[in-house]
Amino acid sequence: MPLPTPLTGVVPPLCTPLTPDGQVDTRSLTALTHRLMDAGASGLFVLGSSGEVPYLSDDQRRTVIETVVDAVSGRLPVLAGVIDTATARTLDHARTARRLGVDAIVATAPFYTRTHPAEIADHFTRLRDGSQLPLFAYDIPMAVHTKLPADTVLDLAANGVLAGLKDSSGDDGALRRLLVRARAAHPGFSVLTGSELSVDGALLAGAHGVVPGLGNVDPHGYVRLYEHARAGRWREAAAEQDRLAALFAMTDVGAEAVMGRNASALGAFKAALHLLGVFASPATAAPQVPLDDSAVKTVRRLLEEAGLL
Amino acid sequence: MPLPTPLTGVVPPLCTPLTPDGQVDTRSLTALTHRLMDAGASGLFVLGSSGEVPYLSDDQRRTVIETVVDAVSGRLPVLAGVIDTATARTLDHARTARRLGVDAIVATAPFYTRTHPAEIADHFTRLRDGSQLPLFAYDIPMAVHTKLPADTVLDLAANGVLAGLKDSSGDDGALRRLLVRARAAHPGFSVLTGSELSVDGALLAGAHGVVPGLGNVDPHGYVRLYEHARAGRWREAAAEQDRLAALFAMTDVGAEAVMGRNASALGAFKAALHLLGVFASPATAAPQVPLDDSAVKTVRRLLEEAGLL
Amino acid sequence: MPLPTPLTGVVPPLCTPLTPDGQVDTRSLTALTHRLMDAGASGLFVLGSSGEVPYLSDDQRRTVIETVVDAVSGRLPVLAGVIDTATARTLDHARTARRLGVDAIVATAPFYTRTHPAEIADHFTRLRDGSQLPLFAYDIPMAVHTKLPADTVLDLAANGVLAGLKDSSGDDGALRRLLVRARAAHPGFSVLTGSELSVDGALLAGAHGVVPGLGNVDPHGYVRLYEHARAGRWREAAAEQDRLAALFAMTDVGAEAVMGRNASALGAFKAALHLLGVFASPATAAPQVPLDDSAVKTVRRLLEEAGLL
Amino acid sequence: MPLPTPLTGVVPPLCTPLTPDGQVDTRSLTALTHRLMDAGASGLFVLGSSGEVPYLSDDQRRTVIETVVDAVSGRLPVLAGVIDTATARTLDHARTARRLGVDAIVATAPFYTRTHPAEIADHFTRLRDGSQLPLFAYDIPMAVHTKLPADTVLDLAANGVLAGLKDSSGDDGALRRLLVRARAAHPGFSVLTGSELSVDGALLAGAHGVVPGLGNVDPHGYVRLYEHARAGRWREAAAEQDRLAALFAMTDVGAEAVMGRNASALGAFKAALHLLGVFASPATAAPQVPLDDSAVKTVRRLLEEAGLL
Repeated sequence: MPLPTPLTGVVPPLCTPLTPDGQVDTRSLTALTHRLMDAGASGLFVLGSSGEVPYLSDDQRRTVIETVVDAVSGRLPVLAGVIDTATARTLDHARTARRLGVDAIVATAPFYTRTHPAEIADHFTRLRDGSQLPLFAYDIPMAVHTKLPADTVLDLAANGVLAGLKDSSGDDGALRRLLVRARAAHPGFSVLTGSELSVDGALLAGAHGVVPGLGNVDPHGYVRLYEHARAGRWREAAAEQDRLAALFAMTDVGAEAVMGRNASALGAFKAALHLLGVFASPATAAPQVPLDDSAVKTVRRLLEEAGLL
Repeated sequence: MPLPTPLTGVVPPLCTPLTPDGQVDTRSLTALTHRLMDAGASGLFVLGSSGEVPYLSDDQRRTVIETVVDAVSGRLPVLAGVIDTATARTLDHARTARRLGVDAIVATAPFYTRTHPAEIADHFTRLRDGSQLPLFAYDIPMAVHTKLPADTVLDLAANGVLAGLKDSSGDDGALRRLLVRARAAHPGFSVLTGSELSVDGALLAGAHGVVPGLGNVDPHGYVRLYEHARAGRWREAAAEQDRLAALFAMTDVGAEAVMGRNASALGAFKAALHLLGVFASPATAAPQVPLDDSAVKTVRRLLEEAGLL
Repeated sequence: MPLPTPLTGVVPPLCTPLTPDGQVDTRSLTALTHRLMDAGASGLFVLGSSGEVPYLSDDQRRTVIETVVDAVSGRLPVLAGVIDTATARTLDHARTARRLGVDAIVATAPFYTRTHPAEIADHFTRLRDGSQLPLFAYDIPMAVHTKLPADTVLDLAANGVLAGLKDSSGDDGALRRLLVRARAAHPGFSVLTGSELSVDGALLAGAHGVVPGLGNVDPHGYVRLYEHARAGRWREAAAEQDRLAALFAMTDVGAEAVMGRNASALGAFKAALHLLGVFASPATAAPQVPLDDSAVKTVRRLLEEAGLL
Repeated sequence: MPLPTPLTGVVPPLCTPLTPDGQVDTRSLTALTHRLMDAGASGLFVLGSSGEVPYLSDDQRRTVIETVVDAVSGRLPVLAGVIDTATARTLDHARTARRLGVDAIVATAPFYTRTHPAEIADHFTRLRDGSQLPLFAYDIPMAVHTKLPADTVLDLAANGVLAGLKDSSGDDGALRRLLVRARAAHPGFSVLTGSELSVDGALLAGAHGVVPGLGNVDPHGYVRLYEHARAGRWREAAAEQDRLAALFAMTDVGAEAVMGRNASALGAFKAALHLLGVFASPATAAPQVPLDDSAVKTVRRLLEEAGLL
């Protein structure tokens, strides 16, 4: 389906269910897709950080797109991450995504290498020209180690290269300044926040929507939050966000001494989806350390406290 | 005056006016103090980053405190930064501040050196014990290169070491999680945001107040923003924040090719205060590069567009 | 050919020549291969940072390996970078490299994602098990944003997972400590430095060889340096290193204001290879900004001063 | 005494002995001073990172300088760190140091604040003009979070602002490039490495001397290393460096889970000096966590293995 301009609402970044031996579990992925649609998502984003995209092979990436595009059947826009180190590789992912029927793609600046704003702009331009798909810039300095400059983003919005921005920079001050400038100049440009713990503030600031990793676990919560905000019920939106912030404690269940922060956060989301009966297995992709029983117990407790279990 | 628990409202971090030859301009500082009190500030914070604290000698620091304490005459709480590399030095500043009559002190974690949460906790504890003043932790990883861990802050709130937190981390997600936990456990603990471009969101999230550098230039704007928020007029609060975000563009007037980011931001605030007739000179402390005429013209234009000039 | 244990000497990381429209120029790559073999290289490393690996598609990566393996014809070991974000993707590259006949593979820790030493160890173990090729760990924190812990490297040397280490960390202190430990425990473990400006010191410290990007331009210089060091002619080694350090100034020819550091350094190496008649074109991969005429003139002058042109 | 140009040899950065209640232990400091002079140091550097300068009050700093200047009695040049956040504060330290009779001062770029090369140059220029003492630039990005640009250092060497550089950047590639340029242009400019684990390589590269923290513990080792290098006995220099690299393992005795890296490294040096009978107490400055008994036992074992105990 054609992408709304701007895209608004809750666009969860789907976790990628895996079998215990590391294959994409398409049945669980279909279940997650239906769950998120039923909860009121306005779009679905596959192959983002929550989808463990850096851990997946090209074959697995294809399977994920095929499965979700098939399950969605055109009822919602599907956005696909085309995350890779630089232009040629990213463009290969984009062509595949286009062939498989996604509605838009999401790309970061080049990483691994040391880059420059002019090179970032050229990267997005080539990606848009080569894919002919609506393109979202993905600002995630924690992974890419570059912050997208506001001037670059706004120039690329002005010349039609970018359809939107997914801001996971955590820099809400920079986001505010960008929103003020974008609103006046580019009303169809979609700004989605990936900062899932300050969504009420981001919506108050004018963001169009949210891409919440925690939305895999509690999509209804984020949809309620969004609806409250749209209706101007800011206190209620804040209360919902507070509840979700408490639930987000699950991302810390894995001890820093024994596993990486990704393994803890994604392990918790997947353990929750397993406990909720959506995923057949909580397995995360290699080489991430799995959560131990005590961590899973904490996830269960947090789900219960949030009324989800 | 005794510090309210929690301290709320707008607590501007005062810029430090200097004469062209680098002395503290006490007359201009008194003028700024009166201006901020008249605008409705609920407290004043001297010797923070906006006050160019790293650039000031001990003599200059003393002069700043004396001048502001004298001008305030007990009508508002005065908080003083006691910023230094580690405990002994910080404690010396704290004792001086106490002797000069401040109502509370604000300290960072140790910097220059590589530290540990247990050491940070001990640092704050010694500071509180040695100064016998209400103590705010100042979380400013951009300067200190350590993020204060939430557990450390909350433990120190629980045992009475910390009276509050000034959060300039820019990490609104972490702030939200802390606010949710602090509200339940420590109702008198004051959380002030130093992220001056997302104050509406921070207040919606439960922050008690704001310490805005830009509040030197437009204190009325921040006081209006705060009052709107307190009254639940969130759209109006957001509109005020948008206006202030546009005004904040002044901090970029100094070109990155020729000066540091501090020289640009503080140079702009001081140029604005000079244009507004509050400061006798726009001078910044050595070795910061001064703004050129074209930059000052941009500051003037932004003040005019904001209706301040 | 079987990899010597330890691998020693000069192992240049080959630049990847491109046609002006961005295809791998196999003829120029063959010319470079012969040039490096003729100069006395003891091994060839393709698809490293100097080979612009993050910019190349999978097809281009395959072409590079095929071309070099074919040109080498078993006279020297060929090592191939299998650089990618995490295990599944890296393993796919490793299997391709094995099929195409390389003698060893070179892999970094996972990147883009936040990882843990236990996960890094598991990553290398799976890579070794899945590829059945000698495996070098590539320590390049500038790109990967993780420093390989010495304990992890030495454990993996002890259990046979790692055949060697390519150290591009620039942390010669950590390298020294590792060398002291590795020499006693794992005499066949090969430690190659990628810090091309302190090779004399690294060899004095016990490193087995060097992987110098600048060795594309002046392989004879690095071979002389290595031979001097092996013969204990340390003053002569240092003089050769000094000369190469002066030549390395070419990597700064591209102004930071207009291009990334990769575009400048790789642009300079390729401009030099073009001026030397080895490469048909100095083109770098998109989206890197190309060097301008003035920068190329500086490259030419440096080659002349070094007696290479 | 007048500073040699260039200053060469082993210039240990003195640890600052403290009493259990945190006062400077002047008797132990005098003992350390004599020990280092007797071992053949060519200069003494007080109030550097090894001297816990960020932890010391102004009073303590004065006591350290007075004690060492008195103990040295003009037999060796005494260099004093004047480490502080920016120009005014640093200059105050410099004037005190001059009054107390030091022979040279050592200063970093401004820190805590975000600065620019032009501001760094102005900072050093004001410091030289205001102190009228030979000035060494201290390049320690780990603490200051800025790398001194080579062009800035060489310009300040050319115009007489800087007498030398203490390079603790750990970036031996950048150091090599600077050495090649400095040797030709500024023969009296002294370059001392603070990277105590690659001293043989640094001397081979042309560094004039070394400022080794570990030299507090084993000054004879560093003097031997230096003498071997000066005589061209590079293999012997390397063997001595290897031995010292093994001894340096003491800096890791404090577990990362319970203390900062400074507390571990300085705690180990001080525990060693206590075990060696030089210091009356191993106390480190607050708020550093002290080493536990097991860590001290490891220090003892390492001293025994090194033949020092």
